[in-house]
Amino acid sequence: MTRFEVLILGNSSATPMYGRHPTSQVLNFNEQFFLIDCGEGTQMQLFRHGIKGSRISHIFISHLHGDHYLGLVGLLSSQHLVGRKSELHLYGPAALKEILDLQFKHSDTRLRYPLIFHPTNACHQEVLFENTRLSVRSFPLQHRIACTGFRFDEKVQSASLKKEEVERLNIPIPYLRLLKKGIDYVADDGTVHRAKDLTYPLPRPRSYGYCSDTVMNEDYFEAIKDVDLLYHEATFLHDRVERAKETFHTTSLEAAEVAQTVNAKKLLLGHFSARYKDLQPLLEESRTIFAQTELSEEGKWFLV
Amino acid sequence: MTRFEVLILGNSSATPMYGRHPTSQVLNFNEQFFLIDCGEGTQMQLFRHGIKGSRISHIFISHLHGDHYLGLVGLLSSQHLVGRKSELHLYGPAALKEILDLQFKHSDTRLRYPLIFHPTNACHQEVLFENTRLSVRSFPLQHRIACTGFRFDEKVQSASLKKEEVERLNIPIPYLRLLKKGIDYVADDGTVHRAKDLTYPLPRPRSYGYCSDTVMNEDYFEAIKDVDLLYHEATFLHDRVERAKETFHTTSLEAAEVAQTVNAKKLLLGHFSARYKDLQPLLEESRTIFAQTELSEEGKWFLV
Repeated sequence: MTRFEVLILGNSSATPMYGRHPTSQVLNFNEQFFLIDCGEGTQMQLFRHGIKGSRISHIFISHLHGDHYLGLVGLLSSQHLVGRKSELHLYGPAALKEILDLQFKHSDTRLRYPLIFHPTNACHQEVLFENTRLSVRSFPLQHRIACTGFRFDEKVQSASLKKEEVERLNIPIPYLRLLKKGIDYVADDGTVHRAKDLTYPLPRPRSYGYCSDTVMNEDYFEAIKDVDLLYHEATFLHDRVERAKETFHTTSLEAAEVAQTVNAKKLLLGHFSARYKDLQPLLEESRTIFAQTELSEEGKWFLV
Repeated sequence: MTRFEVLILGNSSATPMYGRHPTSQVLNFNEQFFLIDCGEGTQMQLFRHGIKGSRISHIFISHLHGDHYLGLVGLLSSQHLVGRKSELHLYGPAALKEILDLQFKHSDTRLRYPLIFHPTNACHQEVLFENTRLSVRSFPLQHRIACTGFRFDEKVQSASLKKEEVERLNIPIPYLRLLKKGIDYVADDGTVHRAKDLTYPLPRPRSYGYCSDTVMNEDYFEAIKDVDLLYHEATFLHDRVERAKETFHTTSLEAAEVAQTVNAKKLLLGHFSARYKDLQPLLEESRTIFAQTELSEEGKWFLV
């Protein structure tokens, strides 16, 4: 099965303590590496967990609070210094370009590789990236400043033919492509050969939803419906739900409600407040509603 | 004796590897904390080494290459989030203010404590900070972009009186202040009471010099003359002296020559290239010229 998994580089909210790091994740889909948010220290975390920066082809930044993007200039500069030549696509709020340009100007840095910036829109969903195997969409979240979540969808692939069957039935070559797409073949004598009988069952396409940072709000539920793995921020325990609402964050109980409502298969909690040295209570609170919850542990890969 | 020591938070040059961090140091003078440069990850390093950000009153930024200041927005933001109220003085190139303002604007951050920015000048020496015990000066270095070093000088203090002697001789109170300043007292009968006999010998005032990043250049030698502890960048071994010159950096052999020429008591090497996983060769090379060399090891305090 195609590799589709997420490595957590940082699970902390904005005042990183106890050895935790601000938000960043690497998504590996079929050996193509996507970086999701890039908090301070991301380049060191990549090194620590054995991921070369050169393998990252696309970076997605959710919003312009420092704990989600302050590692970017360091990472981009280091890629320049180690001689990267390949394109790097960066998706984020339009002002991110201005922030990068100003810093590159004053450090007199002219990147030696193509950095292609794609501004995101926090008002409506859009497809950011697409190839034959995967699509990435952004969708609005509701935070203190413009913020988007991201959804990664594996695409339905053509089925594999049951070769011996197909040869035995002597199905003409031009029809094989149609069978793979699920279209039945009708022989000259009127016999119907069903595509589902002549192909192996397809694995169900998988999806990953990423929500950070946001107040819980049903407006974004549709965008993460039925995801296999949902990362959702859970800055506070629910006894601080008022504080969560004030600061446009979510509690671990609310994150569980979101996962349940959108029919996610699994939930990954993150963006933990410095208030919590021990994270178990957040996990336990979420599991009272949604059993398939995990803590996003730094350095750990999670299968989508 | 008054505490005067430096904690190394980061000793790496611009592509941090092997668990090393970009440049940052904490200087503790008499329990007042000064931060010198603030590379990416500084706030996490402060936490790791048990220094509260709230204790830092002054921050000095040498130049606008990312590995010397990218931790600043994170640190300043976190200080805001944990409720800092006390003044924070920031010294650095004028454009730093523009960089901070732009990022605070887009993250909608209005600091709740006074951040007082003092632009530095990379063309000539200037006194940046002074109180009764310490002065801090900046001086030009020669790097690819405008860059300053810093020098911290303990001030000569008033001497302590030998109380019993002074009382025995019945020296009038108004003259005691003069004795402490080294001025002899002449009694009515013409007897001279020497200040040096009536006071304890003063400890010699100490000084710390900080040079990062620079090509070796005698223009800055005067500014670090006779320092007790000299931190000097040593990005490369001397077999790469051409590369050092091209990139406006120094070799460990050159750093030793600087220390010897300016009559420093001790030398601390730092800003190591990612080329060197093992740093011992840099230390050994420097010691061939200047025996009192140490590697700036992260997490270690060095006495001035």
